[in-house]
Amino acid sequence: MSLDSSSPDNFLNACASQTAVIDKPLDLVCGATLPSHSLVFEAYGTLNKAHSNAILICHALSGDHHAAGINADGKVGWWDHYIGPGKAIDTTKFFVVCPNNIGSCFGSTGPTSTDPETGQAYGHNFPSIQVRDWVESQKYLMDHLRIDCWAAVIGGSLGGMQAMCWSLAYPEKLQHAVVIAAAMKLSAQNIAFNEIARRAIKSDVEFKNGHYLDYQTTPKQGLALARMIGHLTYLSDDALGRKFGRLVNNGDLDTTGKTLGEFEVASYLNYQGDKFSQKFDASSYILITQMLDHFDLAKDYNGNAAEAFSHAQCQFLVVSFSSDWRFSPLCSEQITDSLINAGKAVSYIKIESDQGHDAFLLPNARYQKAVGLYLSRVSSKLEEIAL
Amino acid sequence: MSLDSSSPDNFLNACASQTAVIDKPLDLVCGATLPSHSLVFEAYGTLNKAHSNAILICHALSGDHHAAGINADGKVGWWDHYIGPGKAIDTTKFFVVCPNNIGSCFGSTGPTSTDPETGQAYGHNFPSIQVRDWVESQKYLMDHLRIDCWAAVIGGSLGGMQAMCWSLAYPEKLQHAVVIAAAMKLSAQNIAFNEIARRAIKSDVEFKNGHYLDYQTTPKQGLALARMIGHLTYLSDDALGRKFGRLVNNGDLDTTGKTLGEFEVASYLNYQGDKFSQKFDASSYILITQMLDHFDLAKDYNGNAAEAFSHAQCQFLVVSFSSDWRFSPLCSEQITDSLINAGKAVSYIKIESDQGHDAFLLPNARYQKAVGLYLSRVSSKLEEIAL
Repeated sequence: MSLDSSSPDNFLNACASQTAVIDKPLDLVCGATLPSHSLVFEAYGTLNKAHSNAILICHALSGDHHAAGINADGKVGWWDHYIGPGKAIDTTKFFVVCPNNIGSCFGSTGPTSTDPETGQAYGHNFPSIQVRDWVESQKYLMDHLRIDCWAAVIGGSLGGMQAMCWSLAYPEKLQHAVVIAAAMKLSAQNIAFNEIARRAIKSDVEFKNGHYLDYQTTPKQGLALARMIGHLTYLSDDALGRKFGRLVNNGDLDTTGKTLGEFEVASYLNYQGDKFSQKFDASSYILITQMLDHFDLAKDYNGNAAEAFSHAQCQFLVVSFSSDWRFSPLCSEQITDSLINAGKAVSYIKIESDQGHDAFLLPNARYQKAVGLYLSRVSSKLEEIAL
Repeated sequence: MSLDSSSPDNFLNACASQTAVIDKPLDLVCGATLPSHSLVFEAYGTLNKAHSNAILICHALSGDHHAAGINADGKVGWWDHYIGPGKAIDTTKFFVVCPNNIGSCFGSTGPTSTDPETGQAYGHNFPSIQVRDWVESQKYLMDHLRIDCWAAVIGGSLGGMQAMCWSLAYPEKLQHAVVIAAAMKLSAQNIAFNEIARRAIKSDVEFKNGHYLDYQTTPKQGLALARMIGHLTYLSDDALGRKFGRLVNNGDLDTTGKTLGEFEVASYLNYQGDKFSQKFDASSYILITQMLDHFDLAKDYNGNAAEAFSHAQCQFLVVSFSSDWRFSPLCSEQITDSLINAGKAVSYIKIESDQGHDAFLLPNARYQKAVGLYLSRVSSKLEEIAL
């Protein structure tokens, strides 16, 4: 393992992204093996002498390693509201690590990387990946950073699934799991939305049976549609109504109906879809939505979630949002109940919000306070131990 | 006006579809004029001597004129659970008329019809249509059938919008409006789902900027995606969960993950999308979803629904379904409240169902009883008057 930064310890205080090259083989759940892989990550704050104050941030479907601060492109991190000095995930107390995960498309090994066996991009041939594979890869990064135990593993949505998976795969390697707007498995409706998104990508003629990279093209229209479906379902009806209502671009609706105009909500979604299709890889979108669909926490435990969680050793904070209809509060309450049934320490909070699933990314005073208070107790405990 | 059946009165008892050719110009809201148009319709039951027992059935987005009975192709009508002898809409009491509406694609004048000005199919050049245009066209059919006043105008979803529009456009031409699973206007979320559906159609390379008919092709992939989005949102999460859960075709999920398999819900939706894309016209889908988006009952009445309904003279039955999240019970309650504020006679019933928006088409004992009882009072009143 090596870092591509000049000094091996530079990353400890760096905000710029770093790349960890993992030279060990990674055996994937699907049976394939990645002989080596790279993980791009960012890290914020300082690792203490005991190496006990590290927090792992797990991104969701379309996330990346740039979680906080402003990067070289001037872009603010996707969770900057929550990570930073004095924020809920306080970088004056914690050493916060956020990798881009394998199979994604922001620098870590994925479909757009070169397959060492062929010398070509993996593309559609990148092996199928599961949440467990992301955890295994993150475990390599953990070893690489000489961290023996995470103070906490934190994530929203698919990130929350990783946090739960960590608690079962490496029970002794994390003190706390913060599981936000997640579910132990997807509902049929969730799977169906993902299926429509994948079909939109695959039916774009530019997809070329997955070999679009060989033709120097991308299925932009399909990817834009996929994102529009996703984006719409991450929002609540109320939030959309408040933001856009029935406003039409270019003035009010013409009562003669001659010019129908475009509703602002349509124009907004089209813009979001097009923007996303410029930056995300189609094969990554297919791989990661399949990962979401196939995640099933209790599957290897006779379908019994309490039996699964009986293997966990960490403490849990579970967070849900009232208007989230993709990963509803009911899903979080099922997680909480299963933890209670397994006799584990769990705190649960449902946050009132009209922002839908996206609420987990957005500023919300009660949510910030809940996560901040929970983690301040974690850091106080670390300080006690250090004394 | 003429009928294409040999005898001009044959249609009164016919179950087979009839075509009414309306030779008068139809001025559309958009400013265009259809010099003449055809309406395919089916009729069930017998028109009484006073011509007072006629019911108009208004179909929704993808509906047609075949509402009840079994047609020549052996296909059961889309509302056969509710229309027939002894059923909620009792054809031993009422003369029930269901036209396919203009802009649709099952025989009435629409994008696949020949434009008399060009001798080519209208295709994408078919003028934009509004709910009011459907009502005007249905009014021509009413005159054609020598009906002076509908005993009731009944419809679900977009059909309910037509029933409300009738009550304002021709207050003296209907005794009752039965408004099922409808809304006075679409929410931003609803508009957004329709926009994604339209973009799926338009971004299919076979759409050819709307000129696909000239190329003897159809944007089947786009239309299938559009239908999958629609279909999924007409169902509830619970109903999908109960029907499919997380079942996977070809046996259970392989825990090695080697063969991911296809979830049954995905296979079901793909099948529904493909089936729909064989029979529906892409331009019709675009036109009718735009009609839905732009419907706004109160728009011409200062945005005040009670002011709008103050012009109505009929009585109303409003029906909603508990798990309908595209046209939620709240939408029906807004209609009911506006009618109450306008001082109109209205009955409202919310039906418990886990079938989502689709519930309005499906068997449900309480729903059948509610509509049946309401209409039995309507027919009793007709008999009283006749005595």
